[in-house]
Amino acid sequence: MAPLTSIDHSLESPPASLDPLFRLLSADLDRVNALIVARMHSPVALIPQLAGHIVAAGGKRLRPMLTLASAHLCGYRGDRHIALAAAVEFIHTATLLHDDVVDASDLRRGRDTANAVWGNKPAVLVGDFLFARSFELMVEDGSLRILEILAHAAAVIAEGEVGQLVTANDTNTTEAAYLEIIEAKTAALFAAATRLGAVLAERPSAEEEALERYGRNLGMAYQLIDDMLDFSARQSELGKSVGDDFRDGKITLPIVIAFARGDTEERAFWRRTLEVGDQGAGDLDRAISLLERRGALAETLRRARFYAAEATQALAPFANGPLRRALVETAAFATTRGF
Amino acid sequence: MAPLTSIDHSLESPPASLDPLFRLLSADLDRVNALIVARMHSPVALIPQLAGHIVAAGGKRLRPMLTLASAHLCGYRGDRHIALAAAVEFIHTATLLHDDVVDASDLRRGRDTANAVWGNKPAVLVGDFLFARSFELMVEDGSLRILEILAHAAAVIAEGEVGQLVTANDTNTTEAAYLEIIEAKTAALFAAATRLGAVLAERPSAEEEALERYGRNLGMAYQLIDDMLDFSARQSELGKSVGDDFRDGKITLPIVIAFARGDTEERAFWRRTLEVGDQGAGDLDRAISLLERRGALAETLRRARFYAAEATQALAPFANGPLRRALVETAAFATTRGF
Repeated sequence: MAPLTSIDHSLESPPASLDPLFRLLSADLDRVNALIVARMHSPVALIPQLAGHIVAAGGKRLRPMLTLASAHLCGYRGDRHIALAAAVEFIHTATLLHDDVVDASDLRRGRDTANAVWGNKPAVLVGDFLFARSFELMVEDGSLRILEILAHAAAVIAEGEVGQLVTANDTNTTEAAYLEIIEAKTAALFAAATRLGAVLAERPSAEEEALERYGRNLGMAYQLIDDMLDFSARQSELGKSVGDDFRDGKITLPIVIAFARGDTEERAFWRRTLEVGDQGAGDLDRAISLLERRGALAETLRRARFYAAEATQALAPFANGPLRRALVETAAFATTRGF
Repeated sequence: MAPLTSIDHSLESPPASLDPLFRLLSADLDRVNALIVARMHSPVALIPQLAGHIVAAGGKRLRPMLTLASAHLCGYRGDRHIALAAAVEFIHTATLLHDDVVDASDLRRGRDTANAVWGNKPAVLVGDFLFARSFELMVEDGSLRILEILAHAAAVIAEGEVGQLVTANDTNTTEAAYLEIIEAKTAALFAAATRLGAVLAERPSAEEEALERYGRNLGMAYQLIDDMLDFSARQSELGKSVGDDFRDGKITLPIVIAFARGDTEERAFWRRTLEVGDQGAGDLDRAISLLERRGALAETLRRARFYAAEATQALAPFANGPLRRALVETAAFATTRGF
């Protein structure tokens, strides 16, 4: 299979990365991380243990960085962005914990998720704890407007996650339905995270909406690439698992495109593997080669680039300093990343 | 086995019930139910389906009734208690959905819970949706004080639920640890529900604390009886399942007491059935007869009556009208109910 993401890397040099954003925000991010650790605390020791497992593994801290960056971009000079960035990360972490819950009928994934180590039930309950803590942080902050934005985002995320379950195994899922689902399950929190910066700085609604648009489009690009990477050779070279979505019967954009463009025999393959769930040795390789034959990964990448370009364009109203450049690079990173 | 709860019924005549409370609040409760249905709505059809299943089965609406009753008891004349009672019920429903999540290793319960019908994952995600909706209702209400009370209660409930998991299968669980867990997982929401009434009516903190004390003690009594009824013959006559806690290895007060009072042979029985989880035919009957031999169910009932008496006493500052009498009867009901 063609290493798609390597081709991308060859197009830009040096490759886009999150490093500039990370460097600009590192002092803030240290404070966010310290607050996260402090507020995960509970006399019930399993809570910080389990939450620590996922927070430590959680990786990039992209969503809280977006809140920090948009606050600074709007000229915010206070301290409130720290706690709100932590609140955003808690919502994200709770979502991850709940997303990894396994159904009794679905024990195939062997990843070292929190639920694999501790079981479903503690993972669910610690997710609830983090979700509640997130609202406690917002209440301490004291802005009803911000509570409104994040409570709404949380409801929309849950709707998106349920929508994803409903379309699982359904090869008739349309592109529109898929886009609606990822806008809800992923882009809504990105959009809320960036909007917060303008709200904190009490900027006019045009700036709020510009940052919201940046976050939403970045989130779309990010999720599209995530779905593409699940079929990526490079992903597997990096030691990440490949084919999780395929095994779960998730209908992502690459599948929607390959199914639409496929012939009768190919559609029979997708129905067997994704609807019936009858998968055997070689089926993942076959799926990847069909996705490539139909240009489904390249098309997914093209869509992601469209959203990334929209995100970049949304930043036009802001002064072209290091922070704006770092956010532009973040959008580029979203579509060139190999992990 | 002696039908404990029948003995209780013979002591009071007519038996205490929730009917007086229900009658006094029925107009309000209709509005709460209509709001619950309206706010469960989502374009993702599975959400109202699944939420409707548990909301319909949810039963007594005790927690929202406590918010309505305490608001009226404090002379509140506005409309805000309706939405806040719905918010309280949404938190409770989300907790129920998450409480019924089954671990992969724990598929014994055959009850018709939402997770049994739809699987773990939708049950978790719809719980998240209801939890987020609950906060949306609070944000619309606009009181940071109330958001604080319910966000804190939600975090405490999650801590209590995790604490219960941690002590499962541990026959060394102390009575103090058990009481702390039920105070968190059950009594905290009762206490928040009743406190809200005084907050809404802007009553002095003494009244807030009196109602908080009523709710907390009522919640303790309620949970103690719940734990007792899991071993009750009457429960089984009513077609309710018996022995769920026993099969799950939950360490409730009847077990704590029977273990403490048991001889070597009895302790070996409890360790085998609850710690090792080795249960066979006749073990539940044996457990019930040991609980009775050691007076563990009667002792649990005695404790529940203590909390119910505390709850009743907490109402002393309020005028002795029909509403206070209905709340006193609710406390009596908590310890005489057979379901």
